[in-house]
Amino acid sequence: MVSTVERWAQASAVDVRRAARAGELTASTAGMAGGFVQVNLVILPARDAADFLRFCQGNPKPCPLLAVSEPGERGLPRLGADLDIATDVPRYRVFRHGQAVADPTDIVELWQDDLVTFALGCSFTFDHVLSQADIALRHVEQGCNVSMYDTSLPLARSGPFGGNMVVSMRPLNAADAIRAIQISTRFPLVHGAPVHLGDPDRIGIRDIAAPEYGEPVAIRDGELPVFWACGVTPQRALVDAGLPLAMTHSPGHMLVTDLREHEIAVC
Amino acid sequence: MVSTVERWAQASAVDVRRAARAGELTASTAGMAGGFVQVNLVILPARDAADFLRFCQGNPKPCPLLAVSEPGERGLPRLGADLDIATDVPRYRVFRHGQAVADPTDIVELWQDDLVTFALGCSFTFDHVLSQADIALRHVEQGCNVSMYDTSLPLARSGPFGGNMVVSMRPLNAADAIRAIQISTRFPLVHGAPVHLGDPDRIGIRDIAAPEYGEPVAIRDGELPVFWACGVTPQRALVDAGLPLAMTHSPGHMLVTDLREHEIAVC
Repeated sequence: MVSTVERWAQASAVDVRRAARAGELTASTAGMAGGFVQVNLVILPARDAADFLRFCQGNPKPCPLLAVSEPGERGLPRLGADLDIATDVPRYRVFRHGQAVADPTDIVELWQDDLVTFALGCSFTFDHVLSQADIALRHVEQGCNVSMYDTSLPLARSGPFGGNMVVSMRPLNAADAIRAIQISTRFPLVHGAPVHLGDPDRIGIRDIAAPEYGEPVAIRDGELPVFWACGVTPQRALVDAGLPLAMTHSPGHMLVTDLREHEIAVC
Repeated sequence: MVSTVERWAQASAVDVRRAARAGELTASTAGMAGGFVQVNLVILPARDAADFLRFCQGNPKPCPLLAVSEPGERGLPRLGADLDIATDVPRYRVFRHGQAVADPTDIVELWQDDLVTFALGCSFTFDHVLSQADIALRHVEQGCNVSMYDTSLPLARSGPFGGNMVVSMRPLNAADAIRAIQISTRFPLVHGAPVHLGDPDRIGIRDIAAPEYGEPVAIRDGELPVFWACGVTPQRALVDAGLPLAMTHSPGHMLVTDLREHEIAVC
């Protein structure tokens, strides 16, 4: 008998989006629709969208842009033909003045004609690509969230959006670190190559054993910490900007697109 | 006025080969014919050539094969139209029973109808590619030879050819290490991606401050030692095999080919 987890792993992107749209799926999309690209969503009124677009463009490693909608448009045709931004994510998060105020399962009632949607690369896809190459990921082994850290790496500022980069860390032995650099280089739309490896002090990490986000993982003898730009970076920038209204996916509850992972590889 | 060094740097591969052929050039080819691929040569009687070919095939990182001649053939048409293996290298080295016995400027008198020539990727080209990408190389800054080490990394044995890999080491900060991995991955024919980075113990290096070949270089605060498979590997294997006759280029005195560096990039 096929378990629910396996059934969702083998589902298509369209299956996942339709289940979310029907209200049947409100769970995290981790491990669902294997091989399909999942994305972070940021939805902003047009008045803030130009600044955020420039912010992403200036910081492509933490904020890799896969698609931007026209104002008011509820589709993202490059990411899927049958796709409704306001219903197809299992759970959303609504921010007012930088505060999370609700986690609804759709945003139909909140929709406005001036909303612009940004789809950004997501680490679920990144981790899946590494796992497919037999690179063991400690946070997957430990069954916990990846370790993420504030750094001293400054972002290119744009309007109200700025601050420092947040990075995720995966401990790897040297051979896997080299291989992971090669593989992630092929995927600039899910954060691309690492921004650092080795000594955490060099990028202003306070305490490698105490990540600011996610959970700590063991770094074993012979392993190097390898640091990638992280999708928490735009989330932090968004919260810090304190906009009157902003909406995103709820953490872990992604938009699943019709793009296959190999389609976003640059070589 | 253009210096001799600059003149040779701007020379074509054909210019360098013709000067070597005429006996006018007997110096190291380091820095000559910028952008043209230089290669190591190994020349063996046919009876040993099949084993050596399998050895290279089984150990592509230290022994990347660009071309192999037919027995007795003095040309390597894939590497240059007007090319004579027996005259176009500034200086050769002749080995008998594993001992270097002569460093002649041509091997016309020693030529035999059964000799097979192997052209292997060379670190001059590798270092040039990294330098073109603005990656500062410590051994170039220090004006010395690169540091090279015996390791415990075993080679695939073939007939009399075996032993452990020799690696070269370049100290780089994390950002340059990541970039150097990306760039060298594009060039498998000049040793490709590193085989290790970080802790030298992990690959059996005895003392990072005392390289077995070349000269020691400073590893500065915030830098990682990055290790690449090295062309000294086949030279060691050749000497250790103790063949009755083997010929190579003299160290630093390479065959300059008509191939441009970008032609051997895989992406």
